[in-house]
Amino acid sequence: MNIQISAPASQSSRIRNSVFLQKVTVAEEAVKVIGHGDTVAVSGFASAGTPKAIIPALVGRIHAARAAGSNFTIDLLTGASVSTETERMLAEVDGIALRMPYQAESTARQKINAGRMDYVDIHLSHVAQQVWEGYYGPVDVAVVEVAGITETGELIPSASVGNNKTWLDVAEKVILEVNSWVPDAMDGIHDIYYGTALPPHRRPIELTDVEDRIGQPHYRVDPGKVIAVVETNAPDSASPLTAPDAVSEAIAAHVLEFFDNEVRRGRLPENTLLPLQAGIGNVANAVLGGLDRGPYRGLTCYSEVIQDGMLHLIKHGTVRFASATALALSEAGIAELTSNIDFYREHIRLRPQEISNHPEVVRRLGIIAMNGMLEADIYGNVNSTHVMGTKIMNGIGGSGDFARNGYLSMFLSPSTAKNGAISSIVPMTPHVDHTEHDTQVVVTEQGLADLRGLSPRRRSRVIIERCAHPEFRPLLTDYVERAQAAPGAAGHTPHLLGEAFSFHQRYLATGTMRTFH
Amino acid sequence: MNIQISAPASQSSRIRNSVFLQKVTVAEEAVKVIGHGDTVAVSGFASAGTPKAIIPALVGRIHAARAAGSNFTIDLLTGASVSTETERMLAEVDGIALRMPYQAESTARQKINAGRMDYVDIHLSHVAQQVWEGYYGPVDVAVVEVAGITETGELIPSASVGNNKTWLDVAEKVILEVNSWVPDAMDGIHDIYYGTALPPHRRPIELTDVEDRIGQPHYRVDPGKVIAVVETNAPDSASPLTAPDAVSEAIAAHVLEFFDNEVRRGRLPENTLLPLQAGIGNVANAVLGGLDRGPYRGLTCYSEVIQDGMLHLIKHGTVRFASATALALSEAGIAELTSNIDFYREHIRLRPQEISNHPEVVRRLGIIAMNGMLEADIYGNVNSTHVMGTKIMNGIGGSGDFARNGYLSMFLSPSTAKNGAISSIVPMTPHVDHTEHDTQVVVTEQGLADLRGLSPRRRSRVIIERCAHPEFRPLLTDYVERAQAAPGAAGHTPHLLGEAFSFHQRYLATGTMRTFH
Repeated sequence: MNIQISAPASQSSRIRNSVFLQKVTVAEEAVKVIGHGDTVAVSGFASAGTPKAIIPALVGRIHAARAAGSNFTIDLLTGASVSTETERMLAEVDGIALRMPYQAESTARQKINAGRMDYVDIHLSHVAQQVWEGYYGPVDVAVVEVAGITETGELIPSASVGNNKTWLDVAEKVILEVNSWVPDAMDGIHDIYYGTALPPHRRPIELTDVEDRIGQPHYRVDPGKVIAVVETNAPDSASPLTAPDAVSEAIAAHVLEFFDNEVRRGRLPENTLLPLQAGIGNVANAVLGGLDRGPYRGLTCYSEVIQDGMLHLIKHGTVRFASATALALSEAGIAELTSNIDFYREHIRLRPQEISNHPEVVRRLGIIAMNGMLEADIYGNVNSTHVMGTKIMNGIGGSGDFARNGYLSMFLSPSTAKNGAISSIVPMTPHVDHTEHDTQVVVTEQGLADLRGLSPRRRSRVIIERCAHPEFRPLLTDYVERAQAAPGAAGHTPHLLGEAFSFHQRYLATGTMRTFH
Repeated sequence: MNIQISAPASQSSRIRNSVFLQKVTVAEEAVKVIGHGDTVAVSGFASAGTPKAIIPALVGRIHAARAAGSNFTIDLLTGASVSTETERMLAEVDGIALRMPYQAESTARQKINAGRMDYVDIHLSHVAQQVWEGYYGPVDVAVVEVAGITETGELIPSASVGNNKTWLDVAEKVILEVNSWVPDAMDGIHDIYYGTALPPHRRPIELTDVEDRIGQPHYRVDPGKVIAVVETNAPDSASPLTAPDAVSEAIAAHVLEFFDNEVRRGRLPENTLLPLQAGIGNVANAVLGGLDRGPYRGLTCYSEVIQDGMLHLIKHGTVRFASATALALSEAGIAELTSNIDFYREHIRLRPQEISNHPEVVRRLGIIAMNGMLEADIYGNVNSTHVMGTKIMNGIGGSGDFARNGYLSMFLSPSTAKNGAISSIVPMTPHVDHTEHDTQVVVTEQGLADLRGLSPRRRSRVIIERCAHPEFRPLLTDYVERAQAAPGAAGHTPHLLGEAFSFHQRYLATGTMRTFH
């Protein structure tokens, strides 16, 4: 193969190394290196950093192969979700045999739930090490978006880091997308750590403050592996942004009151608390908004993604420093960041996800983990992933990385869904992503259940009283009282196995968990 | 209070500091400091290091209070289990209001399952930090067994470390039991790390090899807090030892074959593998015995307890070094250790359990975690604690510390229990201690299921085929096939909610999970 032949002349000043310049080509040429059955590792985390040109070209190749009567699927490894359009176009052509580690798109979800796409839903901190350990076989091709290539042949990361360092290290062949839409001045915001290893060669990760720089600003890559460089100038898809609603504001208020109490009791540092991690979405945004109105100054965040709300907090000084692995901004957020990039670059660090989610660092920093959930049971077991126990929604993502090893593990959700038809507090969750051992605080708009130091029976009282919607409280209380009274069978964690999923079964049969209408 | 008045003259050369010598008294005097409602933190981990004199004296005090018409209970915090007799005598007098973090004794278990004792079943690595964080209120009294007191007033640990360092640090008052039965020459086997802190003051734990010494040999204590020193000369209770049976040997054979394959595929270092962690019991002993007959030399162990089998491995050179937080030896094992203590002291390190089980260290060292279980479901969710979902057996102990952050997380069990009436592979576990995300390998005497990189549907096939007992395989296959065929409802993780616990319900109704007799 001699793809240089068809390469267009580079129009870009982003490729400042002649070896790489010679490899410039178009996406349609580059994807010829990807074959049926290949394992393809792709950049992208949330809405940031997905390759813009290669995947559409690959989809074209899959179409052509199908038209010619051949099958064509890949195993797709990413950081977390990739852009919605990218996930959808690959799912629509049935182009993915195996997907790992996270998705959040409706077409892919349908294929997975229909058993037509294998999906391996793992902790985001585990991805790099599991690929290094060979659980997914060799990685044939990496497709990585970068902002530029330096004179020395290093790669300037774009708006997400994710597993890109690992993909560049392990892949047999590499396709680079150089996206000149990414502001030049973002160079320097990244901290790419090259100190990880497989055991027995691991050393301490010397990160003790959220803003510590422990790596280098750029990725390394063996230029001999780079088989094509494709130039693009295309924006990241914007993350949708919805204003916090009354329910989110109520949840946030309970969280903020809890923080105030913890500070008063000397269990959290005043002003600065401890580094915050918050999942994506309305509730997280409402909590961040609430912090901005509170007494806190100089907060830190150690999380996966940076959303619009974080930019405001940084600008106001409420947040001193935020570490993440990706930006996930709205169009307005992207404009705010790019027009003030010199300021934000001094207050944001983007790291590989094996570091942003690393158990060692999460434990050391003492993260306050705030993650959403689908439902919790009356004992504090949490389901983050499976609707009615069987259908995947998105995936566990990084929630387990933070909940398991953090200082405080909080799970947040409205107390009901589907206009009140679904209770997010149930007798037993039909899928468990976070066990009772890892759940310390549950919050709904109804209130906050502090489960620390409580036995299961006490937990059930607190969760039902504080968190369940009043319309479901009698049903839950009735369940647990009868379970506790079961002759000779109640046990440490009382349950009635024949009724443990009665809420879910009722919903499947009648469309509501209510017994009243 | 002036307990020195009744103090007997010390007979022991174990107390080499005059301040402490003046505090020597008898147990009956010492326990007067413990009052109803107190939180009492006690030394002890497995069968080693439980105080021998104070608890019986405390039980006497509880008896007397009850006879006088008063209630008398304590909240009891320990390392893990304490000696069986100790746990039993306190449970028999209903002396415990709250128990944390682990128990393994039948009377206590009955009280807990009857709702008469609050039990908080948490990860062993969390105990020290949660007590420091104040989840259990102030610790009124610590009762700690030591082997001696040095000239400078430091304390020589005995046969378990557990949380003793933390108890001595946080308790308002301290009672020491100086047990001269512990061999003098054990001094030096311990490594007490004083570098932990609450966030935001945590630093990296600079332990990169199982044998690294990062602390000091002795505990520190503020002598002003020590209100009594009681002398004893009493052996640890011996851990029962049963010879591996055919089922355990078969499980071990599958594990060893798996290790061989991993070495061959370059995924584990040959000869030395990676540091091993094994739970207590027959299966663990069989695995260790198998390693002794294999090609391995210079292995290391990083675990909670050291059992007899480990001494043999060390003596043969199969194991180069073993780190743990406690010894749990049979009478023969105790004799072997004490008569060769100078040898074993060079190959064993006993650490605080916050270090033996620390997520940072477990992840860095790349532990191979081998833990027992009650049951696994067809997707790899594991129940380690609750019989039929409600009745506590023991507790999660350290299994989650190792499974969640280790390199390989393996769960081991015979495929059946109760003479074949119970299948340890079930459609859904009615309690989850380790989620599918944290279970990589399941092993029974039937075979080994390697779940790495597999989606749930693939996992179910492998677990049923490899691990389920042949008599239960058709039932499990029938369940999963019907779940997969459920119209519109199958999902990523197919289940039939109305039948998910049919195995357990059948057992509760008929005494067996079988449908055939």
